[in-house]
Amino acid sequence: MASVVLAFFVNGKICKDPNMVSADDFFFPGLNMPGNTSNAQGSRVTPVNVNPLPGLNTLGISLVRIDYAPYGLNPPHTHPRATEVLVVVEGTLFVGFVTSNPTDPNVKNKLFTKTLYPGDVFVFPEGLIHFQFNVGKTNAFVFAGLSSQNPGVITIANAIFGSNPSISLDVLTKAFQVDTKMIKYLQAQFK
Amino acid sequence: MASVVLAFFVNGKICKDPNMVSADDFFFPGLNMPGNTSNAQGSRVTPVNVNPLPGLNTLGISLVRIDYAPYGLNPPHTHPRATEVLVVVEGTLFVGFVTSNPTDPNVKNKLFTKTLYPGDVFVFPEGLIHFQFNVGKTNAFVFAGLSSQNPGVITIANAIFGSNPSISLDVLTKAFQVDTKMIKYLQAQFK
Amino acid sequence: MASVVLAFFVNGKICKDPNMVSADDFFFPGLNMPGNTSNAQGSRVTPVNVNPLPGLNTLGISLVRIDYAPYGLNPPHTHPRATEVLVVVEGTLFVGFVTSNPTDPNVKNKLFTKTLYPGDVFVFPEGLIHFQFNVGKTNAFVFAGLSSQNPGVITIANAIFGSNPSISLDVLTKAFQVDTKMIKYLQAQFK
Amino acid sequence: MASVVLAFFVNGKICKDPNMVSADDFFFPGLNMPGNTSNAQGSRVTPVNVNPLPGLNTLGISLVRIDYAPYGLNPPHTHPRATEVLVVVEGTLFVGFVTSNPTDPNVKNKLFTKTLYPGDVFVFPEGLIHFQFNVGKTNAFVFAGLSSQNPGVITIANAIFGSNPSISLDVLTKAFQVDTKMIKYLQAQFK
Amino acid sequence: MASVVLAFFVNGKICKDPNMVSADDFFFPGLNMPGNTSNAQGSRVTPVNVNPLPGLNTLGISLVRIDYAPYGLNPPHTHPRATEVLVVVEGTLFVGFVTSNPTDPNVKNKLFTKTLYPGDVFVFPEGLIHFQFNVGKTNAFVFAGLSSQNPGVITIANAIFGSNPSISLDVLTKAFQVDTKMIKYLQAQFK
Amino acid sequence: MASVVLAFFVNGKICKDPNMVSADDFFFPGLNMPGNTSNAQGSRVTPVNVNPLPGLNTLGISLVRIDYAPYGLNPPHTHPRATEVLVVVEGTLFVGFVTSNPTDPNVKNKLFTKTLYPGDVFVFPEGLIHFQFNVGKTNAFVFAGLSSQNPGVITIANAIFGSNPSISLDVLTKAFQVDTKMIKYLQAQFK
Repeated sequence: MASVVLAFFVNGKICKDPNMVSADDFFFPGLNMPGNTSNAQGSRVTPVNVNPLPGLNTLGISLVRIDYAPYGLNPPHTHPRATEVLVVVEGTLFVGFVTSNPTDPNVKNKLFTKTLYPGDVFVFPEGLIHFQFNVGKTNAFVFAGLSSQNPGVITIANAIFGSNPSISLDVLTKAFQVDTKMIKYLQAQFK
Repeated sequence: MASVVLAFFVNGKICKDPNMVSADDFFFPGLNMPGNTSNAQGSRVTPVNVNPLPGLNTLGISLVRIDYAPYGLNPPHTHPRATEVLVVVEGTLFVGFVTSNPTDPNVKNKLFTKTLYPGDVFVFPEGLIHFQFNVGKTNAFVFAGLSSQNPGVITIANAIFGSNPSISLDVLTKAFQVDTKMIKYLQAQFK
Repeated sequence: MASVVLAFFVNGKICKDPNMVSADDFFFPGLNMPGNTSNAQGSRVTPVNVNPLPGLNTLGISLVRIDYAPYGLNPPHTHPRATEVLVVVEGTLFVGFVTSNPTDPNVKNKLFTKTLYPGDVFVFPEGLIHFQFNVGKTNAFVFAGLSSQNPGVITIANAIFGSNPSISLDVLTKAFQVDTKMIKYLQAQFK
Repeated sequence: MASVVLAFFVNGKICKDPNMVSADDFFFPGLNMPGNTSNAQGSRVTPVNVNPLPGLNTLGISLVRIDYAPYGLNPPHTHPRATEVLVVVEGTLFVGFVTSNPTDPNVKNKLFTKTLYPGDVFVFPEGLIHFQFNVGKTNAFVFAGLSSQNPGVITIANAIFGSNPSISLDVLTKAFQVDTKMIKYLQAQFK
Repeated sequence: MASVVLAFFVNGKICKDPNMVSADDFFFPGLNMPGNTSNAQGSRVTPVNVNPLPGLNTLGISLVRIDYAPYGLNPPHTHPRATEVLVVVEGTLFVGFVTSNPTDPNVKNKLFTKTLYPGDVFVFPEGLIHFQFNVGKTNAFVFAGLSSQNPGVITIANAIFGSNPSISLDVLTKAFQVDTKMIKYLQAQFK
Repeated sequence: MASVVLAFFVNGKICKDPNMVSADDFFFPGLNMPGNTSNAQGSRVTPVNVNPLPGLNTLGISLVRIDYAPYGLNPPHTHPRATEVLVVVEGTLFVGFVTSNPTDPNVKNKLFTKTLYPGDVFVFPEGLIHFQFNVGKTNAFVFAGLSSQNPGVITIANAIFGSNPSISLDVLTKAFQVDTKMIKYLQAQFK
């Protein structure tokens, strides 16, 4: 298998001699199982990136399954290193992304939205804030491709209000233009 | 939308002023519909690349749906510009890929195979010959991500025996080490 | 100048015949002037990317100057297509970034912070949420390099609470786990 | 030499401390010697990639010499990770490549061919099936550059009919639309 | 921090377990201090690349500070792997770059120059020979971003006349079209 | 041919509708003819890049033929956007490259050299100064691959002493640490 990958590293460790690679290094099972959506957001992302699937190393792509309970939300987030292309398998999703800041200060950050039904495909360009919301009465789920073997995900509310340690109150009160009490209240949701 | 894409070109044509881009440029419907598998191979690939979905431009990713009738085959092929990561949605598929030529002449081209069930994910590294074969008794289908907005597909048998114009008999008889009659017979399958 | 750039496009428009390029295409003046920080955040970013400086086209880098009034904040934001490397020219800044979501659910999003003085350099890796806060009693300013000719910037609070049109209340109340009234209050800060 | 290459890895192994690199790490001899064409195809490829020439690591290019006996063929093959640019040094070659599948089903895979004489240069775009055939009465040879330090080569007939283990008869009979006997005959040529 | 960098290698050595990365890995102090310009050229480059700042690894950007005494020169040089974008902080600099060889032999290598004042930004495209000259009566200094974590720098006069070992006199006399005595005199300046 | 190249631009001009592309767009003849070496350096580079060979567009590779009269020199030069891999076809060449500036000031720029005979391959890493010198008594020539469709070439002596307009005497006398008279003498060789 030396011809497939020049170096077989994952997270800074040599994970396998290229000559020992087998079909199982290119295989990952279980995406038929719905993710557990019993959580505050009512959604679950199951990533299949280079960590569980080392055969993706150096190849610049990965997959995810996302499940949504009725009224479940994959809350606003970004992928710092990837574009996402999603296809709805079941359910009805209201999706959107916000463009980056305009150079023209008279134009606000533009929100693009669409209601998606089974079979609909939608693109979330690299690094932009996006979300999917189950607006149907049944469970929904999607598969999505991401243009990185290690795309990362930054859930905005968690990264802003639930980081460890916390971002200082001075920063957050000024950023959101509200008082300390409200920031503390928001932070309390993400402990 | 100027911040999303620097230039909005598809196939050498300016397809849209960046300021006129809308949510529909990032949207493509219909992948819930099974592709028509009434053909010799019993399979159908429905690509969602930069041609039908211009919002993918410059973003380096695309999707496909592939349908397989019982005993249907997505025959040996390559994507000249992409790795493919597939997830089985329905059915049972026998899949495989062949590594490139070994430097050690005592080792033959290595075939890696796996039987996949719903929820199984498999990687076909960039440019390698691979196939999927429906070994179940029901229809099957998958979604797959590809690491290019314009991955291309080369069906080996069609490109070799069905190109337009034909590859010369001299080349094909020598390449496959068989006589002219057999090559003509093979070519006749792909007219 | 044909040898420098293969194609001289900015935002989808042919901006100049390569043979007509002059030194002024590689020049942009005025970063000695403090940006106007008379705004709610008390900070100002002055970008020098491929829009004002077309000579950057195809070259994968740009610069910014950022000014901070005392207690001024460059609020939590991301660059969807770039890493940022900053050097403090004047003042004292408290800076930080939050890593992407952990695969280990017991670990929270990690915040890395540092107090920077003149001459200090700090890296904000591609796509991660970061901020700079003037914790000194005087004006502060920095220069920063970004690894894209068109890095983009997404100010989190503005993109989330001030997009045009607004992200729906259903999405935001669920994402931030607070009631409609609080979201409306937050949105009111960014109209 | 630390400034030349950031990391000096080949096939997953650290092959040399960058400080110990010498001119010989950038050197490979012997391409003046004709390759041995005493084989069924009457051709021989001698690759100079990152395996024999470690100084190519991270640099994205390699070379090959290809020899052809009279009537010798470099049979239809692809490079999964590289474009090839060839220059004929001696002899007369009939060359061609086939484009990837058309989106328009009425158009067949297009074959582009050219007869080349000494000094002629020809491009085989990344991942496309191509061949060279010695149509002169003398030996021929070429040098070619490839746009990868590890381009790989997939000889179609060998990968399809001579892989180890074999691709199943079910797959091959369906792919080539012929009976089992003919496939077994084809496979027998590549054992 | 596993999500930030897939592998944390510098110069072929594993420099840190990704889980042990801290804010200090993204930090480098001291660019407020003028570089020592007491040398023949009257200038000093202080690089902040992946060697002193390992957090830059895989991120494709770095910074430098350059100081110039009055009449000081950053002599003609190239960065083999980076474009440079410079901003003048103090002083007056005469800067320039030379384009690569023309295809039209009637056109000479084109020199683009500009006199820069504080706040002026200028681009030196990847790999082109460029210089900065302090034409003011005071010290000058700049900050610059470079589009590589390991851009390298080749000072033309030193690389040509001061390499170790020396380039042979035969090569240099012919290249510069002058006699041996003059080359020896030039070489003597760079021992 | 739409699948081969997304956009068919050369030097900022649309050179061809992708559907009109033919085999001749991938072809360039004449590299069997020795270049005219009747010039001061006794060498001639014949480039086959994207300008004469538009089919190379977007493909990241090109070729050159270089001819050397006895005692002919391809003088010290760089390719700002490419690594070069050369194979000697005829003759005996003394070749070398100089590494970029060391971080350790006690180490000079390192020169790596080798005497090459027919069939020898040598690598000149991206952006480094290198040369080839015919040390045999007969004509010599090589073919070389370059890792860019538009690699560029900067002949050091010509760019430094023969640019148009000239680099100022102040810059050159300081850079080379010699007097004005000597610089003027050097410049006179390249008018």
